Amino acid sequence: MTLTGKMLIGQQAVAGSGTAIHAIDPSTGQMLEPAYLGGTSDHVARACALAQAALDPYRNLALVTRALLLETIASEIEAVGDTLIDRAVAETGLPRARLLGERGRTCQQLRTFARVVRAGEWLDVRIDPAQPARTPLPRADLRQQQVALGPVAVFGASNFPLAFSVAGGDSASALAAGCPVVVKAHSAHPGTSELVAQAVARAVKQCGLPEGVFSLLYGTGHEVGIALVTDPRIKAVGFTGSRSGGMALMAAAQGRAEPIPVYAEMSAINPVLLFPAALHARAGTLAQGFVASLTLGAGQFCTNPGLVIAQQGADLDQFLGAVGQYLKDSPAQTMLTPGIFQAYRAGIATLSAHPQAQQVAVGTAATGPHQGQAQVFLVTARDFLADPALHAEIFGAAAVVVQCADDGERLAVIERLEGQLTLTLHLDDADLAAARALLPSLERKAGRLLVNGWPTGVEVCDAMVHGGPFPATSDARTTSVGTAAILRFLRPVCYQDFPPGLLPDALAQDNPLGLRRLIDGQREA
Amino acid sequence: MTLTGKMLIGQQAVAGSGTAIHAIDPSTGQMLEPAYLGGTSDHVARACALAQAALDPYRNLALVTRALLLETIASEIEAVGDTLIDRAVAETGLPRARLLGERGRTCQQLRTFARVVRAGEWLDVRIDPAQPARTPLPRADLRQQQVALGPVAVFGASNFPLAFSVAGGDSASALAAGCPVVVKAHSAHPGTSELVAQAVARAVKQCGLPEGVFSLLYGTGHEVGIALVTDPRIKAVGFTGSRSGGMALMAAAQGRAEPIPVYAEMSAINPVLLFPAALHARAGTLAQGFVASLTLGAGQFCTNPGLVIAQQGADLDQFLGAVGQYLKDSPAQTMLTPGIFQAYRAGIATLSAHPQAQQVAVGTAATGPHQGQAQVFLVTARDFLADPALHAEIFGAAAVVVQCADDGERLAVIERLEGQLTLTLHLDDADLAAARALLPSLERKAGRLLVNGWPTGVEVCDAMVHGGPFPATSDARTTSVGTAAILRFLRPVCYQDFPPGLLPDALAQDNPLGLRRLIDGQREA
Repeated sequence: MTLTGKMLIGQQAVAGSGTAIHAIDPSTGQMLEPAYLGGTSDHVARACALAQAALDPYRNLALVTRALLLETIASEIEAVGDTLIDRAVAETGLPRARLLGERGRTCQQLRTFARVVRAGEWLDVRIDPAQPARTPLPRADLRQQQVALGPVAVFGASNFPLAFSVAGGDSASALAAGCPVVVKAHSAHPGTSELVAQAVARAVKQCGLPEGVFSLLYGTGHEVGIALVTDPRIKAVGFTGSRSGGMALMAAAQGRAEPIPVYAEMSAINPVLLFPAALHARAGTLAQGFVASLTLGAGQFCTNPGLVIAQQGADLDQFLGAVGQYLKDSPAQTMLTPGIFQAYRAGIATLSAHPQAQQVAVGTAATGPHQGQAQVFLVTARDFLADPALHAEIFGAAAVVVQCADDGERLAVIERLEGQLTLTLHLDDADLAAARALLPSLERKAGRLLVNGWPTGVEVCDAMVHGGPFPATSDARTTSVGTAAILRFLRPVCYQDFPPGLLPDALAQDNPLGLRRLIDGQREA
Repeated sequence: MTLTGKMLIGQQAVAGSGTAIHAIDPSTGQMLEPAYLGGTSDHVARACALAQAALDPYRNLALVTRALLLETIASEIEAVGDTLIDRAVAETGLPRARLLGERGRTCQQLRTFARVVRAGEWLDVRIDPAQPARTPLPRADLRQQQVALGPVAVFGASNFPLAFSVAGGDSASALAAGCPVVVKAHSAHPGTSELVAQAVARAVKQCGLPEGVFSLLYGTGHEVGIALVTDPRIKAVGFTGSRSGGMALMAAAQGRAEPIPVYAEMSAINPVLLFPAALHARAGTLAQGFVASLTLGAGQFCTNPGLVIAQQGADLDQFLGAVGQYLKDSPAQTMLTPGIFQAYRAGIATLSAHPQAQQVAVGTAATGPHQGQAQVFLVTARDFLADPALHAEIFGAAAVVVQCADDGERLAVIERLEGQLTLTLHLDDADLAAARALLPSLERKAGRLLVNGWPTGVEVCDAMVHGGPFPATSDARTTSVGTAAILRFLRPVCYQDFPPGLLPDALAQDNPLGLRRLIDGQREA
């Protein structure tokens, strides 16, 4: 449980030789020990070679063994105890309670994927039995299952040091699918990453699995990341971060001799629509809920509500007044890194200087280093439609309120939006017809639509979609949260006229895995 | 049922203004009337605008109505009768019986997707009911379904003028998913394309659907195709054709402001492994089956067996001798286009000139224009491993036999292969252990594995995979044949805390569509 400053390549702790990475405690600005020396392309190649060697044995494990690995990882993370939480607090400035909750979520997520692996629905077994007497041509026996894509590169995220990092959703779902994982740690929390990686490596060892199932690398700049994405053994990429970062990975993945899928969750402003009857009935309550969601975790959520759309008038004025009241008592909060804080300040400065954006609410001023002061701006729909700069995400507790003259402007604003992770509707019964009319547009724009809630909570469950059209993600066909995330790391294989002795277990006639198969077009009960 | 030489933009026949396209009867070299003037970017924009306008109403149709459209298209294609078959024979040089069979397959495919649409499994409904009393936080009501990606661009294929063209597998699965389709006709069979497009347009009209559900465009060169793929309203691309063509579309799709998925089925040599016991027991039978598969349709199948892998020795010599015997009686066949014929000749010339490739079998010489003469070459595994030029697909009835010194060379050859549509194993009981040991490698290399059969037949059914790792396709996660092809054109949307009056039908509490939903982790019976 001690920090070594080293990478983990399989079971081996390996010192890097690149630029040193030091975590910084954003609440004090102090540098934290130890130094983490970045890896080289040689380290990347070693981790990928181990991952490739582990692929066939790992993906062909009994499902119960694979599930056990996920559960053992969860137990080992919990066993790190306060050491992990203390380090994560120091590296991120996030409150202890939040990190305890995030650890719980991370371990629940691993256990959920263990359940998914055991149930085996993701194998999507389809069997079309032979029809030797069919005319004019007989039909062969055809059986389909899903198999692992191959080794997966995962990039740790700054804003969820546990749930979207070393053993977060991307790693959990890739491991669940049967894919070895090579993680590039986020440089903002190298110590947290090492502690979690050690827990994963212990679990791999305890389960008697090939060491290449998991490796952790460090690196500043793009070198290690690009080397990882372009290694021919890597077959998919999971990423949560900035739009520019995700786009760079997409370009690298497409530029390979063999292009591979990139699942990048990038940029969203998560619009909130306040419908007239709801706004009239409860402007104050809506303002309270909005400010709470906007400022949660210093606004550093992918699903942070960065845009509010409503009709101009007295009800909106009342809402804005209440937002101002709630926000002025909202303390500035330490942001994750000095870089994120600077980017937030720059985004606020740009918006403040925008001639058409009017500041209408502001939080308490900072009292310590790297504290983000919440801000809300107001623009007209006409100005919003005219200037894409007003659509840009500012990562942090900043939002733009767009006031529309009428329903036509509201629809135009929605249709002009880029792809989003979420779209939220606040409505009363009297608003239902208008909401129903907008629904087709909303469905085209976002992966998750919410009514009378706030987007910042993302449940880990079967029905969750944490995804959406570009640039919310690089692949709208998928989700990075929830059990459907496993589907990102699979591909179908068909077995034609295989003799019983050669068929994979999932496809065997006597159904040893107890799956609900699709047989000749009929789903088994 | 007359040919007009015009495009179909929605219900409107529109004359192009670009370069004239004339079909050529490859069996005579004669040009066929009428001329088809190519479209411009303006025609592309009009077709895409109509498709976008049709998207919401079309994707929100009752499933039974969408299914009816697919069935009506099938009936309308059948109603074109001999006119269609006559024109397809003239434009492709394919035998009449083959085209009758292909029409049957095309219509069966449309009706199969109609069944799939009605059954609704592709909606993948997942419901996690609210848990208001859960601690520390309540759970919202979360419901997920799949929705259409958006308008889809489909490129007609040269080698299946019906089953992979205007109303082929890509169009059928996209329409089934709720996506309007804009087809770019293959310039080799514009008349066949027009006749089928007219049938589709009649079906759209009969079903009372928005005209933008379907359009057909013509164009030489890349202009219309690239304009189509880069139109912001297009959200996915289906393509079957050459590696260079597919790669160009992938680059265009990735270069968009909003990148979109491309499903390109491109290049495969479909290796056939002859295991020792099987080869010893029935070299002659295997040779007969191989030659039949190799020469089917002049070898112009995506799944044509272009590579044979076997151990050197007397049994392989016997196989090669028998291949020589069968092939020398195999008539040269008219190829699809003069261009394809020239490319085939060039590929053969390259291989003939290769110092390490030995011609071991050859078909009957050509007796008419554009007839491809079948050819088989022999190389050692060592030479094959040393020169990627020997791995290249030659589209047509050409194959390379790789003789291996031992099992190690066989494994090395397999591991060196690019991604494939199919891999075929000919084996007897005594070969089973060796085949089992190779299975993990084979699964990584191809979308379909066959035992003791030939790859050229591709059944349209639930379990089929016509796909595979790059460069067999651009997206190994999918299939372009079989009912799972519909999944390519869908994305998930989650609805959180939606009131009953706003929920889509598929997610309504009382399950009006009769779906087997995943509710709170349990699949309904």
